[in-house]
Amino acid sequence: MAIRYELIKTCKQSGARLGKLHTPHGAIDTPIFMPVGTQATVKTMTSGELKQVGSQIILSNTYHLYLRPGYKLIEKAGGLHRFMNWDRPILTDSGGFQIFSLGPLRNISEEGVEFRSHIDGSRHFIGPEKAIEIQNSLGADIIMAFDECVSYPEEYDYVKNSLERTTRWAKSCKEAHKNVGNQALFGIIQGGMYEDLRKQSAEEIIALDFPGYAIGGLSVGEPKHLMYEILSYITPLMPKNKPRYLMGVGSTDDLIEGSIRGIDMFDCVLPTRIGRNGTAMTSQGRVVIKNAVHTESFEPLDPECDCHTCKNYTRAYLRHLFKANEILGLRLLTYHNLYFLLRLMERIRQAIMEDNLLDYRNEFFQKYGHEL
Amino acid sequence: MAIRYELIKTCKQSGARLGKLHTPHGAIDTPIFMPVGTQATVKTMTSGELKQVGSQIILSNTYHLYLRPGYKLIEKAGGLHRFMNWDRPILTDSGGFQIFSLGPLRNISEEGVEFRSHIDGSRHFIGPEKAIEIQNSLGADIIMAFDECVSYPEEYDYVKNSLERTTRWAKSCKEAHKNVGNQALFGIIQGGMYEDLRKQSAEEIIALDFPGYAIGGLSVGEPKHLMYEILSYITPLMPKNKPRYLMGVGSTDDLIEGSIRGIDMFDCVLPTRIGRNGTAMTSQGRVVIKNAVHTESFEPLDPECDCHTCKNYTRAYLRHLFKANEILGLRLLTYHNLYFLLRLMERIRQAIMEDNLLDYRNEFFQKYGHEL
Repeated sequence: MAIRYELIKTCKQSGARLGKLHTPHGAIDTPIFMPVGTQATVKTMTSGELKQVGSQIILSNTYHLYLRPGYKLIEKAGGLHRFMNWDRPILTDSGGFQIFSLGPLRNISEEGVEFRSHIDGSRHFIGPEKAIEIQNSLGADIIMAFDECVSYPEEYDYVKNSLERTTRWAKSCKEAHKNVGNQALFGIIQGGMYEDLRKQSAEEIIALDFPGYAIGGLSVGEPKHLMYEILSYITPLMPKNKPRYLMGVGSTDDLIEGSIRGIDMFDCVLPTRIGRNGTAMTSQGRVVIKNAVHTESFEPLDPECDCHTCKNYTRAYLRHLFKANEILGLRLLTYHNLYFLLRLMERIRQAIMEDNLLDYRNEFFQKYGHEL
Repeated sequence: MAIRYELIKTCKQSGARLGKLHTPHGAIDTPIFMPVGTQATVKTMTSGELKQVGSQIILSNTYHLYLRPGYKLIEKAGGLHRFMNWDRPILTDSGGFQIFSLGPLRNISEEGVEFRSHIDGSRHFIGPEKAIEIQNSLGADIIMAFDECVSYPEEYDYVKNSLERTTRWAKSCKEAHKNVGNQALFGIIQGGMYEDLRKQSAEEIIALDFPGYAIGGLSVGEPKHLMYEILSYITPLMPKNKPRYLMGVGSTDDLIEGSIRGIDMFDCVLPTRIGRNGTAMTSQGRVVIKNAVHTESFEPLDPECDCHTCKNYTRAYLRHLFKANEILGLRLLTYHNLYFLLRLMERIRQAIMEDNLLDYRNEFFQKYGHEL
């Protein structure tokens, strides 16, 4: 087996799980947040800096790497770890989410999806077998089954047909997976916002016995309470001895509420994307650095933070960098946001250990406020 | 006196000078190259990284800082060093060069230059007194007199009138300079490409007794041999006990040939700008990283370099980053190019110490080739 999940304890107050996930590139502490390195780079960050901010595992995107630089090239480089100079664990998605996001540029059949590249319009086809072939070449520690992420809102019948195809694809992925000893293939639970369909998908996917399970198709535009409700009835159906990954989710609310509902792994472009847009996540809530109020603020971005950005630069300087379109600004806010979110995860794990995650949640939101 | 120049030795083979320039923020080894931090940031680099690559002093631009974020703000921040978190020496230019580069957006008179901001078109006026007031607020260790940098080619009469006005402005700058104890004001020799005018300017400026002298108005489009010729007859006129700064020059040719002709200080955007455009300076000459030949090159950018970029990343990966428009690519090539040029300066200083700079020049160009 490529991975082994170790459940250390369950928070008596919240039910959240503290664990360790052992992978071929080392163990990671869960619940964990995975920064996203779409094109084999977490935007603006070196691999050394990713370690400095405390990244234990990162995610990369199969769709993007397939198109550029191509998975054969990465295989020749010795795999994604060596290509991008990252020696800790990596998870790759299956490409499904990105391909389905292409909208009119793609066409779904039972065999997979035909699509046009967003870069040059060239035609491609990826189905379950191909998605696994690509991910086997990339060599991530954790790889994902090829699934359809349906949009929201979506008709019941469409969602039902789609989740059943996703189950058939999951089976094909499992059969196609060549590198079982070094790469753990996770199944993905779909089912839109329908409770019976979510449960049907969970049963079917779990029956296929994957080493880990993801919940996909959430945070696609539905109200927050709906996502939390779905998590509340799905995670109890999931095996306790395997990791649970909530895909594409990473606001502070979602990380805390997801952990409380038994999720172990999260990923999202949010902290890096809003960082590049000039928004910082701080202990006092979000800070929009371009706002005029920071013009003469010679204070750190977050007075409670001890990251490189907060120890060395002022809000006034960061604001100047953003106003002047300087790359250093994007770097410094990205660095800070990742540091902030990874400290939050550390704090969540500590609260689970101390059986007080619900108290910590209240304390956190009192200062931070809720994300949009 | 804010600075003191110490001549350590003169290369017996080439005549180049090895020295130390003592400033309020520490001593720097000359000949030296100064990376350019136009908007209070050397593009893509943190101040920590600037130290890692060996930057002993950096340059920043008065024109840009005057417009954004404004010199009063930087003064409130405690000066440019604190604003940008750089505790080693800084040199600021006078703004003259940038203002004159605005072309139709500016209008010269005896009092100074009226110009329109390249950012928002607003009207401004900077003359010698204002240039010094701004630089006094910024607080750099070395500040520059306000001068006119004439374009090339330019009529004899225009150049003569201009250099004489530059001399009058230099005098006004000296009178306006309020912070003589902490900031050294350098005079600038102009005179276009006319030998008698260059000599006239040198005499007039040197007569004003500045703590250091710059040669301006070169590398403005004239043939290389013309610049070297001018240096050959101007540096012998300059006092031996004061530093000599060749402005806006930083190709490998110019750094070596300038050192041989007795220059102590250089600055240029070249290594950072071409780095961001995907061109690396390596021991084997320039490398254009996007070229297809690097697609499957899993070798370092420069096999003889031990910088962070060359130790951690391959050409294939760097090429991918540039093809995919990833900021990390701009960072890694900027870092390497600065490291490379600053190592070259170190090597030049060593060759002066060993009295073999002409041999080193031949050896260097045999491998590197000449810059365009």
